[in-house]
Amino acid sequence: MKLYNIGILGATGAVGQEMMKILLERSFPVGALRPIASARSAGGTIDFGGRPCTIVEASDDAFEGLDIVLGAAENDIAERFAPAIVKAGAVFVDNSSAFRLDPKVPLVIPEINPEDVKHHSGIISNPNCTTIVTLVAIHALAKESPIESIVASSYQAVSGAGKNGIDELYNEVAALAHGKSFEPRVFQYQIAYNVIPQIGGEAYSGYTSEEMKLQNEGRKILHLPEMKVSCTCVRVPVVRSHSVSVVLRTREKISVEHARELIAAAPGCRLTDDLASKIYPMPLDTSDQDLVFVGRIRDDLTDERGLNLWCCGDQVRKGAATNTVQIAELLLEK
Amino acid sequence: MKLYNIGILGATGAVGQEMMKILLERSFPVGALRPIASARSAGGTIDFGGRPCTIVEASDDAFEGLDIVLGAAENDIAERFAPAIVKAGAVFVDNSSAFRLDPKVPLVIPEINPEDVKHHSGIISNPNCTTIVTLVAIHALAKESPIESIVASSYQAVSGAGKNGIDELYNEVAALAHGKSFEPRVFQYQIAYNVIPQIGGEAYSGYTSEEMKLQNEGRKILHLPEMKVSCTCVRVPVVRSHSVSVVLRTREKISVEHARELIAAAPGCRLTDDLASKIYPMPLDTSDQDLVFVGRIRDDLTDERGLNLWCCGDQVRKGAATNTVQIAELLLEK
Repeated sequence: MKLYNIGILGATGAVGQEMMKILLERSFPVGALRPIASARSAGGTIDFGGRPCTIVEASDDAFEGLDIVLGAAENDIAERFAPAIVKAGAVFVDNSSAFRLDPKVPLVIPEINPEDVKHHSGIISNPNCTTIVTLVAIHALAKESPIESIVASSYQAVSGAGKNGIDELYNEVAALAHGKSFEPRVFQYQIAYNVIPQIGGEAYSGYTSEEMKLQNEGRKILHLPEMKVSCTCVRVPVVRSHSVSVVLRTREKISVEHARELIAAAPGCRLTDDLASKIYPMPLDTSDQDLVFVGRIRDDLTDERGLNLWCCGDQVRKGAATNTVQIAELLLEK
Repeated sequence: MKLYNIGILGATGAVGQEMMKILLERSFPVGALRPIASARSAGGTIDFGGRPCTIVEASDDAFEGLDIVLGAAENDIAERFAPAIVKAGAVFVDNSSAFRLDPKVPLVIPEINPEDVKHHSGIISNPNCTTIVTLVAIHALAKESPIESIVASSYQAVSGAGKNGIDELYNEVAALAHGKSFEPRVFQYQIAYNVIPQIGGEAYSGYTSEEMKLQNEGRKILHLPEMKVSCTCVRVPVVRSHSVSVVLRTREKISVEHARELIAAAPGCRLTDDLASKIYPMPLDTSDQDLVFVGRIRDDLTDERGLNLWCCGDQVRKGAATNTVQIAELLLEK
């Protein structure tokens, strides 16, 4: 079996750590594993399945000899090092938003558009986490009849802001329990016992950058350039699964019963839809695994061609690390 | 000044307690104040502005001599005692959902349809809390041009399940912090660090009773019998303010700028809408006061006549106790 030398750019963050865990879990054919991070972490070691791997400082020379680099860093880091990665002959599978809308860069959810991977020129982008959770939930419907529009409201976990986001929620809860004050650093305001209706800065006509991703990335992934999306993204005090309330309109009406069949059979989905038995997706149940749970499927009461549903998925895994590793799997020689 | 003898049916619950606080705050012309509760609490006293009031057991004889009874009890209690209240000559302003859709019973938000109070025959209903928060936010838009449809997703506080709901959230957080197990009693599942997409049992075609209230009560309050509403109601780990993500379509397009003007001038609303300055409604800011905060106003990207907005309001106060006391104020002789 051919082995691949893998670099993790941003190896010390929540997503980078999860990527290593998932490479092991999925028995990815890893030759060398090279964690790459800032100068601060360089020289330390990270355990990879019993192998101690020395953390290498991110630099233009850090990518020599690698076959695939998984990107778990912010946009500026991804932009800074993408040319060096491509020059070193590696394929950059990047979880930042830097290249997602670049026409030369495939944007891939392996359950939906795996064939798009073929057209890469050295960079493949991993979509936004809320976009992944939502599209995995609804792609079987889009295949049955093109989706014309989506109205979505999200309930996004603090893990979307990385390890520091999770720590901040727990630290706030602890401080409040002891009557102590604290200063939010990661989120704009206290997130414990609160919800914050802003993720990202203003991007378009009153919508935030996060809110526009479902439309802009969704159009590219589903190959539906006319699809319209109105999204409201909200941070909630949940640790690591995102939930989304979705109302969508298809070109032809899909019945609730047929939608259930399609979603039950869709790769990446688990149908959890029995209100009478209190069965529906919840972030507690979808954390630490890879399936997107879908339930509360019902007719939209405002539109004859509409459907209403609720979905949840682990933001760190399927929303980021797992999907990136799955993209890398598409690159393996058969 | 004429004084009114007031009964509080369900005086020991979260809403009943808040009603007494708000009667005092608003200097309601109270003569006698009679707390009415179950046999378990009867005989005890409740302080009302320095006056100790003996709790009376709920019975058909408990309402003699009262002018107004404020209802803070569940449906079965409201139904059980409504005839006795009316027979005693009091007006029953009821916060339960028992009579809300009865054509003979006005359903009133004083900022929106105060004139409906006139047609009562002894019972006036207070609307559902999420309905109040949402309709206060949008009624000025409905007045400008009739609302044809609403797609709403709620983020509802645990106070919606009363004192026990608030206690359960805090107890769960404490148990989790100490690695202890606990058994949810008030909510279906753990609510700490989770969200639960079910409030109420199934009522209509996959929608819960809570989800149908915004349509059914909204039609009656706004006098828009054709208005269509698709609602998803979700419990979140927030203490006492409800938030709602709203997308609505009016008969004629209202611009974002004009919507801001209308909402800024609307009674019961505060416009908090400046994304660039991180100003938007949040449950932490709207708790323990009566205004509904409205922000994130923007064009719906899926519908040319649509608007998208976000609103928050205190569920215990404006969503229940304050609105009930405001209805009672409409009954006072001028």
